[in-house]
Amino acid sequence: MRIVLIGAGRLASNLGPALRRAGHVVVGVVSRSLESARVLAERVDAPAFTVSDPFPTNAELYVVSVTDDALPSVVASLPDVGDALVVHTAGSLSMAVFEGTKVRNYGIFYPLQTFTKNVYTDFSSIPCFLEANSAHSMQTLRSFAHTLSRDVFDLSSDQRRYLHLAAVFACNFSNHCFAMAEQVLQQQGIPFRVLFPLIDQTAGKVHLISPREGQTGPAVRRDQHILQSQEQLLAPWPELQQIYRVMSESIQRFDNPNFLQND
Amino acid sequence: MRIVLIGAGRLASNLGPALRRAGHVVVGVVSRSLESARVLAERVDAPAFTVSDPFPTNAELYVVSVTDDALPSVVASLPDVGDALVVHTAGSLSMAVFEGTKVRNYGIFYPLQTFTKNVYTDFSSIPCFLEANSAHSMQTLRSFAHTLSRDVFDLSSDQRRYLHLAAVFACNFSNHCFAMAEQVLQQQGIPFRVLFPLIDQTAGKVHLISPREGQTGPAVRRDQHILQSQEQLLAPWPELQQIYRVMSESIQRFDNPNFLQND
Repeated sequence: MRIVLIGAGRLASNLGPALRRAGHVVVGVVSRSLESARVLAERVDAPAFTVSDPFPTNAELYVVSVTDDALPSVVASLPDVGDALVVHTAGSLSMAVFEGTKVRNYGIFYPLQTFTKNVYTDFSSIPCFLEANSAHSMQTLRSFAHTLSRDVFDLSSDQRRYLHLAAVFACNFSNHCFAMAEQVLQQQGIPFRVLFPLIDQTAGKVHLISPREGQTGPAVRRDQHILQSQEQLLAPWPELQQIYRVMSESIQRFDNPNFLQND
Repeated sequence: MRIVLIGAGRLASNLGPALRRAGHVVVGVVSRSLESARVLAERVDAPAFTVSDPFPTNAELYVVSVTDDALPSVVASLPDVGDALVVHTAGSLSMAVFEGTKVRNYGIFYPLQTFTKNVYTDFSSIPCFLEANSAHSMQTLRSFAHTLSRDVFDLSSDQRRYLHLAAVFACNFSNHCFAMAEQVLQQQGIPFRVLFPLIDQTAGKVHLISPREGQTGPAVRRDQHILQSQEQLLAPWPELQQIYRVMSESIQRFDNPNFLQND
């Protein structure tokens, strides 16, 4: 497919090369600044445009991946692209952003992954969640998604909000736990890398056993002696101490099989 | 070395087979109940004992890995094992548990990993942290540790408490984030496995970039609109809502380069 990328952030920077590998042709990279458009445009061998430039309107697919704040205005200012499909990639925004715009065929292409510029991501194993405004749009979107990923699902905007929320817990919050651990070690002059095997094992274990059942450590053991002494160690950092307390209490409640059963 | 394992829990169950692979001989497995001792004893081809049985006193090394609560009384009730080295494996207990007992040569062997029964763990990549009551004990312990692991460090009891605390954040708390994510998905009927690539990438990324610098998501973007709408989605679970709030606030403070600089 001939594709225009609108946005040149982390997601677009990872998607662009994946599109090329899948045999698609990127016919334009559009960004707020020409500089950021150019960086990605060079990597995918496409011309760079700013949002106010007359970028190609004869592509088959437009992928809009800009910040959630910018998305409504970017979509509203799109030129007439005829019957081309226009998708956005935001986890928590619905298809409503396309209503009342010139866009006729639209949908959502939500790849569930955390992206880092310059860290290569294999798109083929990324679960992609789709939604579209018509059966025809969905058919186009599904064919496209299958060229990139083995794991393609239909998901409503409403469910996608929960999926995005779950991803925040699984990715951003767990990463923050790693950052807090790094902070504790740094203060002792212990290199953070000593935790790598533990972190790898913790992530690897969820493939084999539910994280709730696989929990270990002083909280789930209800080892009050260790819980109290660790909380005391955190006295210099009241914020980490609060997190230690609420997480330890929550781990103990999750360990109760009756907890949350009525959801 | 001829080794007696005292305790047959998760750590001992993973250590036992690793000892055999490293060429050591397990000459006894001791546990509170004969049943639990037998399960591990069979796997390492050794006799099983309860703590009140007369188990071998002519081994070269005794590894005591029992719960923190039980450790002091188990150590106090050990028979005279002569010049053999006795180590415990607890992250948050010091060498003081050996003082005033019959044990003459003692120390700590702390492998930093989360262990699951029946989930194989490669010991060679587990960082092991050592402490001993004399240069002689340390030499024995260090030689032993190097037969199991490539990553062997000396660490004081005091520093080990911080290391254990960091491990609770990096392992138990991140695992709880995965459990909360699973909870959110379950309620929507979305299979937890869709998060596996995201979890793998999140853990893998810390090898390449500090988790503090590599943070992504609505909190570090200060996307108030998404933060508020996700907090609202959590209204049915006040506990998860509280965790959402404190973690999001903490992520934003960690993102401030001046935060915690004075430690």
